Amino acid sequence: MKNIEKLEKKLAYKFKDKKLLIHALTHKSFKKPYNNERLEFLGDAVLDLVVGEYLFHKFAKDAEGDLSKLRAALVNEKSFAKIAKSLNLGDFIFMSIAEQNNGGKQKSSILSDALEAIIGAIHLEGGFELAKNIALKLIEKNFPKIDAKILIKDYKTKLQELTQGRIGQIPQYETLRAFGPDHLKRFEVALILQGQELARAIARSKKEAQQMAAKIVLDQLGAL
Amino acid sequence: MKNIEKLEKKLAYKFKDKKLLIHALTHKSFKKPYNNERLEFLGDAVLDLVVGEYLFHKFAKDAEGDLSKLRAALVNEKSFAKIAKSLNLGDFIFMSIAEQNNGGKQKSSILSDALEAIIGAIHLEGGFELAKNIALKLIEKNFPKIDAKILIKDYKTKLQELTQGRIGQIPQYETLRAFGPDHLKRFEVALILQGQELARAIARSKKEAQQMAAKIVLDQLGAL
Repeated sequence: MKNIEKLEKKLAYKFKDKKLLIHALTHKSFKKPYNNERLEFLGDAVLDLVVGEYLFHKFAKDAEGDLSKLRAALVNEKSFAKIAKSLNLGDFIFMSIAEQNNGGKQKSSILSDALEAIIGAIHLEGGFELAKNIALKLIEKNFPKIDAKILIKDYKTKLQELTQGRIGQIPQYETLRAFGPDHLKRFEVALILQGQELARAIARSKKEAQQMAAKIVLDQLGAL
Repeated sequence: MKNIEKLEKKLAYKFKDKKLLIHALTHKSFKKPYNNERLEFLGDAVLDLVVGEYLFHKFAKDAEGDLSKLRAALVNEKSFAKIAKSLNLGDFIFMSIAEQNNGGKQKSSILSDALEAIIGAIHLEGGFELAKNIALKLIEKNFPKIDAKILIKDYKTKLQELTQGRIGQIPQYETLRAFGPDHLKRFEVALILQGQELARAIARSKKEAQQMAAKIVLDQLGAL
């Protein structure tokens, strides 16, 4: 058996039932009567709620649609694989030799599934609050800057794709002014398409203001 | 204000913060600075986990894919609207006159959303375990027969649609034998398509055996 105590230390959680942890670490390729797919099913729902609740509090004024998008940006294979890598999870997963030779220890899907299964297992054994605390610590450590920018990033790209597709042109952004004292600097930006100003926005950075302007236009176009 | 105490009685939960309940009951058509969409976002994730965990325990041997299908059969607008109706939720939802005149009090989407929002609100105020207990009571009361049959029902229909589409024929089921003592009666059924036997299954009822045979064939066809 691998030294799963190291993993427990990284998780800051000691499993009462070690078999449950082994269960969560067993990939289906390992050909045991059990694997981690059922625990992954459970953990996936735990993480959806953990992240949903976290965003609900953190973005107390954002609309439901924005919360959904933010969650989708966090709850996905790529993000979870990143967290799994921070735990060196690949070294602890039981998988077939063939899967190992196939790069299984670095595969995002395998890593992400095992992470979900572990959170599912902690939820089963220790309850939701405990699973939530452990999951949030991992998320905050790996994504210290969860903020509206994750979301905002989408708007500019989305608008660009949309206008490129519809009219073969992309929006231009013009910084109209910068104002306020250094620690409270604000930027006003205009969004221009085909020579016409479609929206203006003010924010703490030019980039953010551009994104806000793009959001306004997307909203006007009914594309949000 | 409507008599929300009646609703609390039906829920068997008294909100400490009555505003939170009102929040959960406020449809966006009511044109307040708040509505129940954010709480619905939260409640949706709570219910996904509640039902997922419930199925995880109840169907301790079913594969992850089956659990997902079972959950989808339970966690949907139609099921939640049924639960909402059992609480007369329509009478408690704050909505615009226009929406009321439009049959809003009976609309599945509005009812289902408000139910999710209430569960989200209970989770916020009382924690996951409490929200889980209340949700499970409502689910078990309205769906006393949550069992593999919800799932099984799909297989026969699915196979029939598939063969009808592909070869213009539907499977026939032949009962080969019934055996065992009365209290442990078993039935063996064969699935026949175009005169060929494709699968056999044994179960406690003919219907269940037919469904199991259909599942085997769907699996062979890679259609599961």
